This record gives sequence, structure tokens and C-alpha cells, in this order.
Amino acid sequence: MSDDLQLPTEDQRAPQTVPPRIGVVGAGQLARMMLGPAIELDLPLIVLASAEQESAAVAASEVRLGRHDDETAVRDLAREVDVLTFDHEHVPTGYLERLKAEGRVQVRPGPGALVNAQDKLVMRRHLSDLGHPCPRWWHVKDIADLEQALRENSGPVVVKTPRGGYDGHGVRIVERAEDAADWLEQHGELLAEQKVPFTRELSAQVARRPGGQTATYPVVQSVQRDGVCYEVVAPAPDLDEAAQHRIQRLAAAIAEDLGVTGMLAVELFETADGTVLVNELAMRPHNTGHWSMDAAVTGQFEQHLRAVADLPLGSTNLLAPCAVMVNLLGGSAPELVSGARAAMEADPGIKVHLYGKSVRPGRKLGHVTVVGEDPVQLLARAHRAEELIVDGPKSPDTTGRADEAVTSGGHPNPDRPRTPEETL
Amino acid sequence: MSDDLQLPTEDQRAPQTVPPRIGVVGAGQLARMMLGPAIELDLPLIVLASAEQESAAVAASEVRLGRHDDETAVRDLAREVDVLTFDHEHVPTGYLERLKAEGRVQVRPGPGALVNAQDKLVMRRHLSDLGHPCPRWWHVKDIADLEQALRENSGPVVVKTPRGGYDGHGVRIVERAEDAADWLEQHGELLAEQKVPFTRELSAQVARRPGGQTATYPVVQSVQRDGVCYEVVAPAPDLDEAAQHRIQRLAAAIAEDLGVTGMLAVELFETADGTVLVNELAMRPHNTGHWSMDAAVTGQFEQHLRAVADLPLGSTNLLAPCAVMVNLLGGSAPELVSGARAAMEADPGIKVHLYGKSVRPGRKLGHVTVVGEDPVQLLARAHRAEELIVDGPKSPDTTGRADEAVTSGGHPNPDRPRTPEETL
Repeated sequence: MSDDLQLPTEDQRAPQTVPPRIGVVGAGQLARMMLGPAIELDLPLIVLASAEQESAAVAASEVRLGRHDDETAVRDLAREVDVLTFDHEHVPTGYLERLKAEGRVQVRPGPGALVNAQDKLVMRRHLSDLGHPCPRWWHVKDIADLEQALRENSGPVVVKTPRGGYDGHGVRIVERAEDAADWLEQHGELLAEQKVPFTRELSAQVARRPGGQTATYPVVQSVQRDGVCYEVVAPAPDLDEAAQHRIQRLAAAIAEDLGVTGMLAVELFETADGTVLVNELAMRPHNTGHWSMDAAVTGQFEQHLRAVADLPLGSTNLLAPCAVMVNLLGGSAPELVSGARAAMEADPGIKVHLYGKSVRPGRKLGHVTVVGEDPVQLLARAHRAEELIVDGPKSPDTTGRADEAVTSGGHPNPDRPRTPEETL
Repeated sequence: MSDDLQLPTEDQRAPQTVPPRIGVVGAGQLARMMLGPAIELDLPLIVLASAEQESAAVAASEVRLGRHDDETAVRDLAREVDVLTFDHEHVPTGYLERLKAEGRVQVRPGPGALVNAQDKLVMRRHLSDLGHPCPRWWHVKDIADLEQALRENSGPVVVKTPRGGYDGHGVRIVERAEDAADWLEQHGELLAEQKVPFTRELSAQVARRPGGQTATYPVVQSVQRDGVCYEVVAPAPDLDEAAQHRIQRLAAAIAEDLGVTGMLAVELFETADGTVLVNELAMRPHNTGHWSMDAAVTGQFEQHLRAVADLPLGSTNLLAPCAVMVNLLGGSAPELVSGARAAMEADPGIKVHLYGKSVRPGRKLGHVTVVGEDPVQLLARAHRAEELIVDGPKSPDTTGRADEAVTSGGHPNPDRPRTPEETL
């Protein structure tokens, strides 16, 4: 299953003297956030976008128009680059298998690894075979299978479409087998899982290079809202060092076992007794790793590029004791500019990231990160900024203190907003 | 002299709901390093480049071709944007005066401020009139003036061309008046300065918004090599808090007095008794502030964009007790890719920034930053990386430990390279 490890097309002893050209299939915010690091590392990058106004397409210097599920478009991009990587996992596996077989472009992650992030049935089967901790699960091919799952589970099960799901789409809680009859007809087969009585969700990011080098990030705590990642605290509070390391080893082992190249996010359920179970896998930079852009020596977008370009991986150390990230999900404000201005005015320490997307309720439009010491205080600051940005400043007159000074107070008190007494 | 303060074209009480379009005149590495933050803040940015292969032109999504000293090219760019700012200070002042008078575009910094970074005679006159500390200086209009300066100084003077100098160009140590006769003929007038017996050079960065808000960075220590910035330590070692604040206040006062909008760098001489004298001014992100990209909450490129876009300024707090930056000046390696790979392999904690420029001896090709605690250790690491990158890895066989793992060791020990014992 280690795609890239089996490819003898690169000689580790003959260092490249020109940077590899990287093609990114998909032009959402993940491709967009690769652009800054690609510029700094001087890695030429081409984005495949299905429309000119997509998040990464408006910001990239090189854009090709074409859909991720159009094999010709993907092949045309592949012809222009040395390495193909992804903004999302929805490129049909067959396209990538054929590109890999031809051997003219490096597909990273390779199709044999990526299928585990594309197909939840494949993922469950592989992880279970490898002995990695999963919720109890059933491969459902007909109503009888689902009835058996419900019986064996003695209660409702979580039913998932094997492919195409994201952000809560393709997931349904099912109490009676008939409730999933439509999906069974549509998809032919489904994954049913035990509904895990988790106490919280954790996420572990790890990067892996083709030769096998890995770099693991601190395990983080994540909170979903309506199935969408909403809030992340890094590192996860109240997770002792032994558990932290055990989960990091699990993530690195999954990356190794599946032969991942690039970033891997392992989303986990933590239960009352401290057991963790793998929920989902993503083989790309992931929402639960956005904090690292502002709070780790090497952010996940830079790290993904280093991994797929086969450059040595960077330090994953934190730059502050704690970082929190809160997503900007479309709210009542029709635009984010005035809210972002108000949020920056209210708190000079927040980092605002906007994805250049039009506002729709619940849509991922950006995120804010705050670094400091106390997670409770940092979350309060991040949510205050979030509310100002997605719902707009209530009273524009309270903002606009344009003559207040910001002075460096040195290290390490970045989590305290400046007060007027500290002005010059 | 406060250009932007006198412009009544913006109403602070009516927040903009669309981001201002920003035009950057010049496409060197400073414009290039604005691109990442512009993407994250979703600020549309257009670069005016004199050639397609310039540092920022190869990386920007929007590029116009034209020279900074071609008034039509500058005006064409101005027509497309709301705010005009700069990669360098060489745009003729007259062009900007005319644009400002027409009032259709915000010129930031405005010509009345910028002239102090363009013309060293204007700068000396203004700073002296304002009572800011300068070396003793003479306005030299003929050989007799220079002879008098040499007599009054009782020794050699530093002669500078008023305009067009950078990185040591346009600066000459003169012992006899005849040694500057050619420049006098060429430039009509010159600046002569006392040769300051400085113990070290310091630099103070400050950002200023149109409404007057300022944000000051920690004062840094800089070392030049052949007139080119080479090494920076932030904050400046052995600079007590009182001196730190005094110099920050000086920089903010200069920004205020000259009406600067955007980043201002004040380069200073420190003498044996702790006195500081202003050496040069730059009104844009500056080489002595590159460390802030990786080691401050708000990097100078983001801060410059926030200032010229009239967004609230961000925190200038450090993310680590110390950061060092070393420039990558063209050395014996014909390309930087293999050296950068070796440097990343040797030290996962370094941050490498490459400007996408072809190699020429002494040319600024990139920089590396390292954050941590001990400046001596950080400088050793940064210079080791620098040597590997600009002179190339001596033996490619010593690199390529592609199976070594990088594990987050948490905060706050980012200045210690990982050891094999720490692998998973």
C-alpha cells in the first residue's frame, strides 16, 4: 500500500537542482493557503480550478480551468507538473491509478493511499486489518445487513455513504433500516458504524515524505457545529504527555501503514476512559491544522508542500504555549470587510484569514487564530472576533480608534490585548 | 508634511464594505513577500513589474508590465487601484505629487513623506529641523563646501548622493574634496556626513496608519556586509528597556512628524555612550524587519498592507524570546535548491525564504530566520544554513536522512534541533 515507497523513479542521492513543479487539483481555500508558502519556498505551483472565481483561482499566479472529475483536465494539468497533489479527495481513484501507472508524474498522496480518504469502507477495512482502533462497523450491502447492524449494536447506528461525503454531508443517524433505503439504492453499499459515546473529538496531523520521514504535530481538540469543524485548541487541553505521544504514534503509524505522502489528518473520538477511536482520515492540509499557520514553526500548508516536493520536513514545534482557531462560517453579515476591520480594531492580536468566497450561511469563509497561554481566554477572544466578522459590527461608531498606538511588549504575553495605558 | 492626514477623502465613520485594491510599484522581493499576507487578508493586489521574470512578477496573480520611472505606467496602475504603495523609493516624487493632487488614488506613503526616503538631503534637513538626532552633516553644492566640511570634521567625511543610493551604492568615504568631484558634477549637490564612530547598528520599525495609529516593533541589531544588510537579531541584545522604549518613541515620532503611511524603518548608529543617531530611513518593509514574518504576531509585510489599506494595525509582539535573520547573498553555488534542501535536512527549525531570483555574487536571493532563546546559538544555526544554501552542500551523501521523524516537542524549545533519540 506504500505507493510512493514502491516508486523507484527518484534517486535520493542525486539532489534536484530545480524545484519540482506542483499541480494542485481543486481551488478551494486549502489550495489557496498553499500559495503563500509556495511563494516563500519558491516552488512553482499550478492550480486546477473549475471556475475563475474559486478561492485559490483568484489568488494564484498560475491557474488552469477544468474539473477534478474530468480526466482530460486532470491529465492536462499532470502533463505540466512534476508532482500532483490535492485540495480535496474527490478525484476519481481510477484517473490517478492510470497516471501513476504511466509514471510521468508523482501522484502524492498516491491512489493506493488516497483511496482510504476517498472511500470510508476501504478505510475501515484497512484500519481494522492493520489493528488500528476503530468504532465497531458493518459493511452494509442490503437492508438485511443494516437490520443486523442495528440488532448487533442494540440501538441506532451512524450510516455513511462510502464516497463523496464532507462536512457532515453523507452522514445519517439511522434507527430503522428503512431510513437508509434510498441511500442503499443510490450507492449500492454503505458503511454503518457504532455511534460512539465520545467525550470530545481530537485530531492528529502528521506529514510524511516519500522516503518515509514523518513529522507529527501536537494533538488538538476540535469541536464541530452541524458537522462542520468550528473550533480547535492546540495542544488539546488536559491530554497528558503519554496520551499525546500515543496518539502521535498512532497517526504516524497510519501514515506509514497506508503509505501516505503529504499531510494526513486523523480525526479521533476520545471516550470517557481515554480510549481513542479513528473517526475519519483526510490526506491533505485539514481544518483542524489551520492553527499551525500562525502558531507552529512550520505551518501545515508549508509542510504539505515540503512533503509532496520531497523536501525535508520542518519543525512542528509550537511558537506559543497555546493556539486556538475558530472558523468563520457565513452568518448574518452580507460581507466580511467591515466585520474584519472591527475585529482587528478590537483585538490587535488576532490573525484573520479570509478565503475570498462570497457569503452564504454556514459556508466556510475564513478563520481566526489567536496564540497565547490560556485556552479559555483565547477562545473568548477568537469567538468575539468571529462574531464581529460573520455577523458584522453592531455599531460602527465604537470602532475607529485610529490614533491608538500598538507597542511591542516583547515576549511572552501575546494573549493580552493592548490597553490604552500602554500607548506611546 | 502629513500627506495623508490632510486628505479628507475618507470618512472613518463609514467603514468600507469592499477591500481596497492595492497597487505596488516595483516587483522585487519586498513586493513578493506582500503577496502571502495579501492573500490571507483577501486584499486584491496588482504589481507593476519592469520585466516578467522579476521576483514578485513570477508569483503575483495580477501583474502589469511597466517601469517605475515611466509616468504613464505608474498612472495606468494608479487608475486600476484605490491605494498606491511601493517596493522601493525610486518613483520620481513629481509623479506622485501629481497623482496626489488629482485625488483619485491614495498614495501611501504620500510624496511629502516619501521624499525623505528618496532624498537624503531633504531627510537630513527635516530631521534636523524637527530636532531628531542626526550625525553632523553638510549640504555640499561645490568643492569649497566639501573642503569646509572636511575642515570642520577634522577628518574624512561620508559623502552620499542625495538620490538613487541603496545597499552601499551612492556612498563614499572622502578624505580630499577632489575625490567627490565626479559626483558633484553628476548630481549637482551632495550630502556630507560625519563618519560616526558607532559601536553597532540598530534598526527600529514602525507602522503608521493614515489616521495616525502607530505600531512599533522591538528594536533590532543589524550587521551590514559590504554595505548590504546581512544579519539581524531581534530584539537587539543588551539594550535595556528604557533605551528600547526611547528608540521606539523616536521611530514613532519620526513617522508622525513626517506623516508616513505604511512601514517606516529607522536605521540607527549606536555609539559607545549609548547615544543613537539616525542613519537612513526607508518607507516600506525593510530587510531589518524580515524576521517579523516568522517571529512576530504580525509580520511587517502584513502590517504594511494593513497600514496602507487603513486597516487597524496588528500586534508586534514576538512569538519567541529571540529571532535572528541572515540574508542569503549570492555565493559559489549556481543554484539554491540543493543547498536549501541540505539546510532543511540539517535543521528542521530554520525558515527558508527564497526570492526566485537568478544567482549573482552578493545578490540578495533570500533569507533564513530562526527563532528560539539564545542569540549566539541561533546565529550559528542561521549561518550554517546560509552557508549550505549559498555555497551548496559540500557532500550530498551526508544529507538525505529521509526516514528520520520530526516530533513536536511542544513549547518553548524551538531553538534546539531534533535528535535521533526523539524519533518516534
